[in-house]
Amino acid sequence: MVTPVWQVVGYQNSGKTTFILSLLEYLKDRGLQTAILKHHGHGGTPDAAVTKDSDRYFQAGAGAALVEGEGVIHLQGRMEEKSLHKSLALLMAFEPDIIFLEGYKKEPYPKIVLIREEGHLSLLEELANCQAVILWPGINPAHERLLPFNLPIFTLGQDKLIFNWILGILED
Amino acid sequence: MVTPVWQVVGYQNSGKTTFILSLLEYLKDRGLQTAILKHHGHGGTPDAAVTKDSDRYFQAGAGAALVEGEGVIHLQGRMEEKSLHKSLALLMAFEPDIIFLEGYKKEPYPKIVLIREEGHLSLLEELANCQAVILWPGINPAHERLLPFNLPIFTLGQDKLIFNWILGILED
Repeated sequence: MVTPVWQVVGYQNSGKTTFILSLLEYLKDRGLQTAILKHHGHGGTPDAAVTKDSDRYFQAGAGAALVEGEGVIHLQGRMEEKSLHKSLALLMAFEPDIIFLEGYKKEPYPKIVLIREEGHLSLLEELANCQAVILWPGINPAHERLLPFNLPIFTLGQDKLIFNWILGILED
Repeated sequence: MVTPVWQVVGYQNSGKTTFILSLLEYLKDRGLQTAILKHHGHGGTPDAAVTKDSDRYFQAGAGAALVEGEGVIHLQGRMEEKSLHKSLALLMAFEPDIIFLEGYKKEPYPKIVLIREEGHLSLLEELANCQAVILWPGINPAHERLLPFNLPIFTLGQDKLIFNWILGILED
């Protein structure tokens, strides 16, 4: 079976990380294995401070350093940039039931789109493969810019509804 | 080409990490891509403090969390224990010229053995596939327990000699 890859997209501060954190917890409680891939958003490499051991090797020049203990692994490595497919391949080694991408707007995977302001509804026109919309409270779910897409529309805070919808898709 | 896997073994405090750190630096300066795999030695999972982002996802229940930025990736994940081959497969994704294992004494890969005390020479009898011995100063390189193995013997501190020997093997 091919591992499904889903994206959670939205402008900065649209609540992607918070949404994903609750989602991961929900799916875990239902016995699903998840994996998550995120682009470090603020420029530069990921915040320092990976496992002390792996970091020492990495600083000394290892292209990749992996430390494992009691079933937990910490890995840091250098790759060509924009190697999304390699990153996905790494995550697939963990045999997840689903992989979520936070961001990577231009990728073609099915997307859950978080919209914080009406002005951001244009995102739906710009992105490929939108599958569901999560609106911040105050945005009209019957907004005319939403109509053409005919997508399931949720309001932020309806976590259970949204998560069940995702679960339904996974179980199909 | 199959990626060579070499082990650096020895009792605790025999200098494995220090040796590997210099080796990684030396090989990097010569344009070689290295990868390193280590078992977290003190029991428990690797020391906390992975990338803040990946750790949040991981704590929320993700089986694997990967954060990438400017060509550096940080990954933490859960695996069945003793999945050395999976860990090696993860490292191979980085296309290293050589992978070093620190420890994992019982594995069959070619080994560089660090010996701190004469009493530890018995290690050579216990381990499979020893290829070179590094003795701490004060141990006689002509010790009778070394003779049967007919291995290259180095003394700790002769880093350049040892590293060149390893480089020679890699270039063969």
